[in-house]
Amino acid sequence: MTLWKRDGAVEKNVERYTVGDDYILDKKLLVWDGVASRAHARGLRRIGILTQDELDALEAALSQAIALAAQDKFEITVSQEDGHTALEEFLVAKCGAAGKKIHTGRSRNDQVLTALKLFIKAELVKTQELLHAVGDRLIQFAGTNPVAMPGYTHMQRAMPSSASFWAEAFAESMLDNISLLHSTYVQLDSSPLGSAAGYGVSLPLDRAFTAQELKFERVQVNALYVQNSRGKNEALVLSALGQVMLDLNKLASDLLLFSTAEFGFFILPEEFCTGSSIMPQKRNPDVLELMRAKAKQVQALHFQVVSTVSDLPSGYNRDFQLTKRPLMEGFEIVQSSLQIIAELIPGITVNRERCEAALDPSIYQADIALQAAARGVPFRDAYHEVKQGDSRAAAGIDPYQHLKCKSHIGAPGNLQLESLQHKFQLVAQELAGRQEKLKAITFC
Amino acid sequence: MTLWKRDGAVEKNVERYTVGDDYILDKKLLVWDGVASRAHARGLRRIGILTQDELDALEAALSQAIALAAQDKFEITVSQEDGHTALEEFLVAKCGAAGKKIHTGRSRNDQVLTALKLFIKAELVKTQELLHAVGDRLIQFAGTNPVAMPGYTHMQRAMPSSASFWAEAFAESMLDNISLLHSTYVQLDSSPLGSAAGYGVSLPLDRAFTAQELKFERVQVNALYVQNSRGKNEALVLSALGQVMLDLNKLASDLLLFSTAEFGFFILPEEFCTGSSIMPQKRNPDVLELMRAKAKQVQALHFQVVSTVSDLPSGYNRDFQLTKRPLMEGFEIVQSSLQIIAELIPGITVNRERCEAALDPSIYQADIALQAAARGVPFRDAYHEVKQGDSRAAAGIDPYQHLKCKSHIGAPGNLQLESLQHKFQLVAQELAGRQEKLKAITFC
Amino acid sequence: MTLWKRDGAVEKNVERYTVGDDYILDKKLLVWDGVASRAHARGLRRIGILTQDELDALEAALSQAIALAAQDKFEITVSQEDGHTALEEFLVAKCGAAGKKIHTGRSRNDQVLTALKLFIKAELVKTQELLHAVGDRLIQFAGTNPVAMPGYTHMQRAMPSSASFWAEAFAESMLDNISLLHSTYVQLDSSPLGSAAGYGVSLPLDRAFTAQELKFERVQVNALYVQNSRGKNEALVLSALGQVMLDLNKLASDLLLFSTAEFGFFILPEEFCTGSSIMPQKRNPDVLELMRAKAKQVQALHFQVVSTVSDLPSGYNRDFQLTKRPLMEGFEIVQSSLQIIAELIPGITVNRERCEAALDPSIYQADIALQAAARGVPFRDAYHEVKQGDSRAAAGIDPYQHLKCKSHIGAPGNLQLESLQHKFQLVAQELAGRQEKLKAITFC
Amino acid sequence: MTLWKRDGAVEKNVERYTVGDDYILDKKLLVWDGVASRAHARGLRRIGILTQDELDALEAALSQAIALAAQDKFEITVSQEDGHTALEEFLVAKCGAAGKKIHTGRSRNDQVLTALKLFIKAELVKTQELLHAVGDRLIQFAGTNPVAMPGYTHMQRAMPSSASFWAEAFAESMLDNISLLHSTYVQLDSSPLGSAAGYGVSLPLDRAFTAQELKFERVQVNALYVQNSRGKNEALVLSALGQVMLDLNKLASDLLLFSTAEFGFFILPEEFCTGSSIMPQKRNPDVLELMRAKAKQVQALHFQVVSTVSDLPSGYNRDFQLTKRPLMEGFEIVQSSLQIIAELIPGITVNRERCEAALDPSIYQADIALQAAARGVPFRDAYHEVKQGDSRAAAGIDPYQHLKCKSHIGAPGNLQLESLQHKFQLVAQELAGRQEKLKAITFC
Repeated sequence: MTLWKRDGAVEKNVERYTVGDDYILDKKLLVWDGVASRAHARGLRRIGILTQDELDALEAALSQAIALAAQDKFEITVSQEDGHTALEEFLVAKCGAAGKKIHTGRSRNDQVLTALKLFIKAELVKTQELLHAVGDRLIQFAGTNPVAMPGYTHMQRAMPSSASFWAEAFAESMLDNISLLHSTYVQLDSSPLGSAAGYGVSLPLDRAFTAQELKFERVQVNALYVQNSRGKNEALVLSALGQVMLDLNKLASDLLLFSTAEFGFFILPEEFCTGSSIMPQKRNPDVLELMRAKAKQVQALHFQVVSTVSDLPSGYNRDFQLTKRPLMEGFEIVQSSLQIIAELIPGITVNRERCEAALDPSIYQADIALQAAARGVPFRDAYHEVKQGDSRAAAGIDPYQHLKCKSHIGAPGNLQLESLQHKFQLVAQELAGRQEKLKAITFC
Repeated sequence: MTLWKRDGAVEKNVERYTVGDDYILDKKLLVWDGVASRAHARGLRRIGILTQDELDALEAALSQAIALAAQDKFEITVSQEDGHTALEEFLVAKCGAAGKKIHTGRSRNDQVLTALKLFIKAELVKTQELLHAVGDRLIQFAGTNPVAMPGYTHMQRAMPSSASFWAEAFAESMLDNISLLHSTYVQLDSSPLGSAAGYGVSLPLDRAFTAQELKFERVQVNALYVQNSRGKNEALVLSALGQVMLDLNKLASDLLLFSTAEFGFFILPEEFCTGSSIMPQKRNPDVLELMRAKAKQVQALHFQVVSTVSDLPSGYNRDFQLTKRPLMEGFEIVQSSLQIIAELIPGITVNRERCEAALDPSIYQADIALQAAARGVPFRDAYHEVKQGDSRAAAGIDPYQHLKCKSHIGAPGNLQLESLQHKFQLVAQELAGRQEKLKAITFC
Repeated sequence: MTLWKRDGAVEKNVERYTVGDDYILDKKLLVWDGVASRAHARGLRRIGILTQDELDALEAALSQAIALAAQDKFEITVSQEDGHTALEEFLVAKCGAAGKKIHTGRSRNDQVLTALKLFIKAELVKTQELLHAVGDRLIQFAGTNPVAMPGYTHMQRAMPSSASFWAEAFAESMLDNISLLHSTYVQLDSSPLGSAAGYGVSLPLDRAFTAQELKFERVQVNALYVQNSRGKNEALVLSALGQVMLDLNKLASDLLLFSTAEFGFFILPEEFCTGSSIMPQKRNPDVLELMRAKAKQVQALHFQVVSTVSDLPSGYNRDFQLTKRPLMEGFEIVQSSLQIIAELIPGITVNRERCEAALDPSIYQADIALQAAARGVPFRDAYHEVKQGDSRAAAGIDPYQHLKCKSHIGAPGNLQLESLQHKFQLVAQELAGRQEKLKAITFC
Repeated sequence: MTLWKRDGAVEKNVERYTVGDDYILDKKLLVWDGVASRAHARGLRRIGILTQDELDALEAALSQAIALAAQDKFEITVSQEDGHTALEEFLVAKCGAAGKKIHTGRSRNDQVLTALKLFIKAELVKTQELLHAVGDRLIQFAGTNPVAMPGYTHMQRAMPSSASFWAEAFAESMLDNISLLHSTYVQLDSSPLGSAAGYGVSLPLDRAFTAQELKFERVQVNALYVQNSRGKNEALVLSALGQVMLDLNKLASDLLLFSTAEFGFFILPEEFCTGSSIMPQKRNPDVLELMRAKAKQVQALHFQVVSTVSDLPSGYNRDFQLTKRPLMEGFEIVQSSLQIIAELIPGITVNRERCEAALDPSIYQADIALQAAARGVPFRDAYHEVKQGDSRAAAGIDPYQHLKCKSHIGAPGNLQLESLQHKFQLVAQELAGRQEKLKAITFC
């Protein structure tokens, strides 16, 4: 049964077309829908809509529903259309009239938004933890692989670099990604609950109270704005996830290049490679190719969301439904990618011999010109001299000695391992705090 | 002449293909390139590369260049390729050998990134000011148009709303947009200067000093990460600008719908409409149609950026050049759109008669059911009763009285005018502070 | 078991990450994989790799596999990775050594491409049939609804039009879509079979023979080009499907607008509408809102495909795997949308009274000016006269009389019903021919 | 002056916001607008709106305008808004009253569409010619570089290939691109002229006559459909152009990879490379990096177009204006890229030594297994044997002898040079015919 009475037989394919896979996707929201419903019930008690007995009954049933959902044992059927209906039916079955009161002053419109925002907040924190784990492995890699290798621009050998320095670039990026996910969290940390269908209701709902129950920093005030931010919220999350994927895409691109037979700088761990059905000798880096491709998938999901909500007039429009899957897939892709790259990194072997052999003499030209500059030759003149000169003069340079000259902040000779480690430790503490807060919402 | 010597005749169309419109776009960066060059020169003095006399000469020439650029009088030619070359040639012409020293320890790679980041910061603040102006006009509109009208879901009349409430939804959104642009600013507020071509240089550059000169909050440490964040920076900005455009797209969509002959709620100001070459009677809302379309243009630019930098291995790749125009166009579109909508809003006339006439009786059904719920009838039962009942019972309801019942936070009967005004005042102060800071960089 | 031996334990999450949902998606390809395998086996017989007995055994087993797959009874497991492996294992189980020979001279790379191309061809024809059905319903609608209504430009009333004329616009577009899908079919109608992993094999495969067996128009010659067209093929299909969705998006947008309370021109069939959980009176056009949104989903899938294959060097790359789902989802969305709109159209009721009432006098101004022009007044002068004149002069015009004046080709007074019907009949015959051809491949 | 009278002062920034760069873009359409206007004038004569004298005067003036436009000497001002207005003003100035009659029965809506379609047809043919030129150079390259090199899958050495075979893959793709552009031409080859603002006019325009004058294959009948195909047309073109760019993107990606120091297979012509401002030794392949990036630009333009026209109700909407620049930029990017790659290809040097050295023994494993299969060993068994065996057995194989075994259609040992040359000759003849037809329209 659906919440609204159908005045005739609605064709099966209308159901299929409109419900889509919502009844599956909503399973990811059920815990949060239960949590939000508990806060809403407490709010209804506060304004006298529910008696204390009714609230007690609902709280007990909701705890049961949340526990079932957390174990993935709460079923939703196609004919129920969505998790909200399934939950309401569960409460009616358990609590009778009290169950029929739970939807007082609430619409599925604010209900789903509240569940989605809680879901987003939890997933953002989970993603931050994975970013932390990847950063950690990169720092370890940097610490154990102080191997000189060329740095590239335009895919051409440019200046001396090192494997450590390369890994640190990504570690620092993970720190920025963690910051970005946090500012995304803060930007979205406002409660939609109590905005109903976008136009409020004629009941004195205490929205500040329910916001506090759910540990939102503030109320998203205007009820219509709550609806109008559908799609904007999801796009903001997907933009942040897209930033993470741009890094993973580049990390994968580098690894794919550096592990070709021709570069041969890195050897990928065998258990992350697959074979060929026709060529016995092949070791294919499928995991990294798919990671490269999945970055574009997240970009496409992002585009789908912004495109879907464009041109819609104010208020709820059913088009919003199609923003749910992109959001969930976005998190799934990013988290599984971070998970697998965190496992892959420690397995990489750096081929020191190939790396060092690739440092051909011309790679030192810029620095030779700079050393002339430091002696007072105008840089542009030194540049032209070196360019016309004999680069074999550089042949005797020891790359490790040379890198030591590049010791200013952020240069490859001045590794930032300790500083990075310290920052990652601070981040770990912050993330622990955010996890605590999430648990407090779920189990309160 | 270009900075690197060409060993043969490079065809005109190679020049055209590679330079593109960079020599035009770079004019927007020239002031910031001058400012960053001044900081770099001071840094070179600090480590003894420049004498005090050389620095003085360069500072004088740079002040001149900045002033010329600010008045759009600094020319860049196609053969110079970009603004960096033009500026260096200017300094060489003015200061001789000192001019040839300015590029010591610097690459065009960190040079352009520094100029771009300063440009982004300035444009973000400018955009925030325009968002503030639009919010201001929306609050004024809300204050002068307390007219009841239907609220819509699924483009169908749903519940009673008001023109004020509608405008407040967008005003609150502008506040969130301002926050978002600020967190974008903070995320990007790290100095790339001194990272050179992505691998540092063999000179003891004081990157913390130049960062402070340019009022960056921190140094973006790893020199390779600096390069790897090309495209990520631009995408972050375009994501934020895209959020603004989603609001303007919705605002335009609403205005286009509400000003059709059939809705007739709003009358658009004549000076923002255009005519037809064949139909004498037409008043066409072209400005709003273009605003609707320009939201998609920003989305496309965003997509272009993320797509362009995907799959690139670490370090500078020339593909980056094609992220410059999307960034600049993004700002241009958003700023001109905010400007024009700020001018348009005060000219909108609300047709009270049409608005009120559209409140047909069935629009009160949800609230009638809720009032039964408040009396103790389970909401789901009340819902089914009202659904089957005679909605004409609602016919006598006065919409303004009715809206007063909807007085909880964020409901249309509880306008937030004062609260919004207060928030916008606070924002105005913050923005003034950011403007001061920008001026301090430019003229220090 | 997989086709290539794993030299160690590959983690479960590597399997999950790399296999994805391929083992599910491949079920849609199984029939075509069986058909292509039969052609390949015949080809191997032809060059003496298989004996006649081996071929007979394989043909019998393949017929069984095809029949099972057609009834959706052929299972693929995650550990098999894909349908190709599942099929090979089936053949080995049934035919022993002959089964182990089926992959001679073939790679999964050309195998999947052949199955995909056959799948695409079949789905294109199926989609054309649905386009035909929609066109048919539109013509019927046009025939039964010769109701005058305004034509719009800029969402403003512009000139007199009619419901029939509106429907014919979409019918003609369906004809063009059918043509486009056909030219897409022709563009892709070349056989990849025998190209192996992209570099041929050292066996004298008769590619022209297998192409003919599978009724491909020609051989896609260069084996590397076969691989390099991965993604291009899918993008071409999604472009064509995107054209269809642009029409359905516009059709849905028109219906959503014309069925608002304010326009009131059309009444949507109740069984295609859904209700609200909070507002008893609501009739929401969810089907059309989702159709509007699904157009953007197809656009996003298209973008995902082109973006995924960009930047990949020549030859197979695992990234290709992620183009399979977009292709299949694209067909699924377009076909289900065509199906449901074909069912919806006959249920639309045109509200003649509201339509005619919307023809306000000013709508005739352009035609009044044109009639002056026909009498010799320069059009631009007539235009300015009418503009300044009294449009009430038009008040007495009968819209149906007026539409008759607009009788040149393609004008609303000159309906093309018979011509359209004729064209749709011709198309029906062509489609029947294409269906026959497909059946001939499957059951030969 | 604009064609419609403004009842007040329209602000400068409304003009800037609405006109955009139309007045510049329209210069590319002017010739075609003149040609279409001539056909329209002849049509008006046919139905008695113009006298023969008026037609003669208009034809003379139009010939003059077309000639001026062809030499880029016809100016359009911002205040004229677009080329249509500029042309009408020119005709009024030259022909007086006859000039004022030219717009009879026409709207800028069908006028721009007609000019755009003629423009598209001409640019498609021009692009086909460039595709032909690129194919030609690739065949020449293939003919002069029969050098064995590895073929790659997953960016790993897979099977023996050759530089010729690699080039032929792209040549064959160019043939398919030419076909695709032709079917795009055919799909769009219908005349919009005479459909006016989308609802016809009350004049007996002879649309079949004007279609024939402009050498359109057929009339696009329904006037509303003409408007509704705005954006669809542009998207179709951009999809075809996007296919071309996917090839150029892959060609560029291959060249960038093969010309790294590590691969070293190809040496790029120096005049297509640029230098670095800091590293004297650098030879950067900027042209190819930009080509890689420009593929994404075309994808973004495509997306912009489909996104812009999504959700628009039937009939003209001003949003359409923003589809003009993407179309024109798309052609510009593709044509300049084809031009430059055609010039670059003959300059590529193949480093035979590096290519051959990269053929390590394991690359022959698949073929060794296949030879066992040809002797009767089931392929899957042979595969496992070779996999476990000693690949050094392959060490003595001569790659050129080996490639000769791979001689079936499309394999690298069976070059298709003659067949490709023949096909390109046929195409050249067809293109010459299309050019003739275009000239016949312009100068008739």
